[in-house]
Amino acid sequence: MEGSGAEQVTRIDDLPIRDELRGKSPYGAPQLDVPVRLNTNENPHPLPDALVARIAERVAEAARHLNRYPDRDAVELRTQLAAYLTRTGGHAVTRENVWAANGSNEVLQQLLQTFGGPGRTALGFEPSYSMHALISRGTGTGWISGPRRDDFTIDVEAATGVIAERRPNVVFVCSPNNPTGTAVDAETVLRLYEAAQAAGPSMVIVDEAYGEFSHRPSLLPLLAGRPNLVVSRTMSKAFGAAGLRLGYLAADPAVVDAVQLVRLPYHLSSVTQATALAALEHTDTLLGYVEQLKAERDRIVTELRAMGCEVTESDANFVQFGVFEDAHAAWQAILDRGVLVRDNGVPGRLRVTAGTREENDAFLDAVRTVMKENR
Amino acid sequence: MEGSGAEQVTRIDDLPIRDELRGKSPYGAPQLDVPVRLNTNENPHPLPDALVARIAERVAEAARHLNRYPDRDAVELRTQLAAYLTRTGGHAVTRENVWAANGSNEVLQQLLQTFGGPGRTALGFEPSYSMHALISRGTGTGWISGPRRDDFTIDVEAATGVIAERRPNVVFVCSPNNPTGTAVDAETVLRLYEAAQAAGPSMVIVDEAYGEFSHRPSLLPLLAGRPNLVVSRTMSKAFGAAGLRLGYLAADPAVVDAVQLVRLPYHLSSVTQATALAALEHTDTLLGYVEQLKAERDRIVTELRAMGCEVTESDANFVQFGVFEDAHAAWQAILDRGVLVRDNGVPGRLRVTAGTREENDAFLDAVRTVMKENR
Repeated sequence: MEGSGAEQVTRIDDLPIRDELRGKSPYGAPQLDVPVRLNTNENPHPLPDALVARIAERVAEAARHLNRYPDRDAVELRTQLAAYLTRTGGHAVTRENVWAANGSNEVLQQLLQTFGGPGRTALGFEPSYSMHALISRGTGTGWISGPRRDDFTIDVEAATGVIAERRPNVVFVCSPNNPTGTAVDAETVLRLYEAAQAAGPSMVIVDEAYGEFSHRPSLLPLLAGRPNLVVSRTMSKAFGAAGLRLGYLAADPAVVDAVQLVRLPYHLSSVTQATALAALEHTDTLLGYVEQLKAERDRIVTELRAMGCEVTESDANFVQFGVFEDAHAAWQAILDRGVLVRDNGVPGRLRVTAGTREENDAFLDAVRTVMKENR
Repeated sequence: MEGSGAEQVTRIDDLPIRDELRGKSPYGAPQLDVPVRLNTNENPHPLPDALVARIAERVAEAARHLNRYPDRDAVELRTQLAAYLTRTGGHAVTRENVWAANGSNEVLQQLLQTFGGPGRTALGFEPSYSMHALISRGTGTGWISGPRRDDFTIDVEAATGVIAERRPNVVFVCSPNNPTGTAVDAETVLRLYEAAQAAGPSMVIVDEAYGEFSHRPSLLPLLAGRPNLVVSRTMSKAFGAAGLRLGYLAADPAVVDAVQLVRLPYHLSSVTQATALAALEHTDTLLGYVEQLKAERDRIVTELRAMGCEVTESDANFVQFGVFEDAHAAWQAILDRGVLVRDNGVPGRLRVTAGTREENDAFLDAVRTVMKENR
């Protein structure tokens, strides 16, 4: 074999990759260089200077011991995350209830390695966060696509019917739901949980990545007495720290113990832990930005409706709007006006992230023009 | 179900976890509070002050944009890692050949998700880095334990025989090997690669986590013309940055494309990328520490042999020694003298990390005492 193929270009499919990966493309939003990017639900507010300085300070402290492995159990960070949830989530938790990883994607991956995996299935109600299906497949977990109503809410009768029939090992409930913005009420989650216990018992994972932006209270209080329920969160959105990659979960301490059977040892770096701790010190400032974004989100909803758009009720930092005969053509027309929004593949709809007031104005102007031209 | 179980303590096995996780414990070295810790192959040299300052500076820059997702493809970091490998590894690579993740554990996990997984197998020659088997199992990949000679080298005839018979999809070659310290020569890797291509074709992953400490040159030049070969590396050891969690690989660009089919999007945070880039600016200083550690490692080998220990030839920053009738009792006896080493489960042997001169003296004194008492 030596030297053979040295002159040829090898392609992915020439490698002995898994069959189900053949012909696939990597997941990810298109990254285009345009003036206004409202496509990945980032928080438009840069961290305040005082927090940037505090991050530098805490990371420098951590860097002095960077030759040592990080705290494998991230005890201080989990303690502070628990304090934050206790203060804002309407439910007291301790660090024994909390686990953290590199983004909520890694949290979900660890949960699927523990409770899903080969020979098991996970159910989500689509359209929803597409990583739920992708991480399921990545962990060998079969994916079941459950239904939503035409208004993107969950039809409890239909949903519990699917649970009873398909008996998934994991049920995802995204609230507020990405990309639709739809929140799920506690009564619905309880009905799904009960159905999942009757059919399983199965784990129910409530993905509250956008929880802080909701008009409704967090679903965290449902954890009491429900060991098979998990609430996942992230610092990417409300904490304005998408670049940090810090996701976490709250659940029964047994769940926290269980994911440690599959987590890679020392998965969370010292610099990540130090940065997250600095950000948590500035919670009040960051939650102030959240209030501004909620007001902007509500303004976007109102103005889009005034233009004649059909807008899905939003509890998140983004808004789903339409209905376009050709959503992709509308996406391109808005992009041609310098504003990048997201086509998540929901027929006739697009999703826009609430940005700064100026960015949102640019977006609204672009849609106004596009709507007029298509009348 | 509501409220049921609220008063009971839930245990891991009460949850609907995967059957193969039942009764398991999390992986990880015991973390004990003792004066001299030489158990996890950490670099004993703290980062120099100039580098700590540079990390704070680069992280502060990154923190100003922390509300945005990180560079998903880590282009600048991969470019600098490629430059480092080109300069020190005897083989020119570009960023198209390099991929990075949160520790080499995550690199290996991504490789196994791509090339291993359910219905596939991975082979390693044990004793070796135990995470190879654990990550295989965590990704649903069947594990095949291959043999080593009594002196811990790989018996090429026996090894190629196992490859031909079992046809693993992935073959791990750890060089220098953890926990034995044994390096593998290029001729052996070539024979294993040829056998793996004849039986598969299969991927061969050379784990060079301790490559910089070796008397031998890197195996990187073997990548030329071998698209199914991967060399993995880490900044945890030679760069003195275990707390950073930065692992990487070099391979054919097709391999780099392929792992992007399974990587979690935005897996590598902005702060991790910034910190790693700062460390790479200080490569020469850090490689100076490596030379000091190699000298200390050689001194440990010489002194242990002078005491009558049997010491495995080491190309790493650690040394395997024995032979003890009861290795765990010897581990405890050394610990009782304030020095924590590692019992990796290799019969009759223990592993000690090369620390500072003072730490190594403390270790050698402890072993000397233990050897005398057991005579």
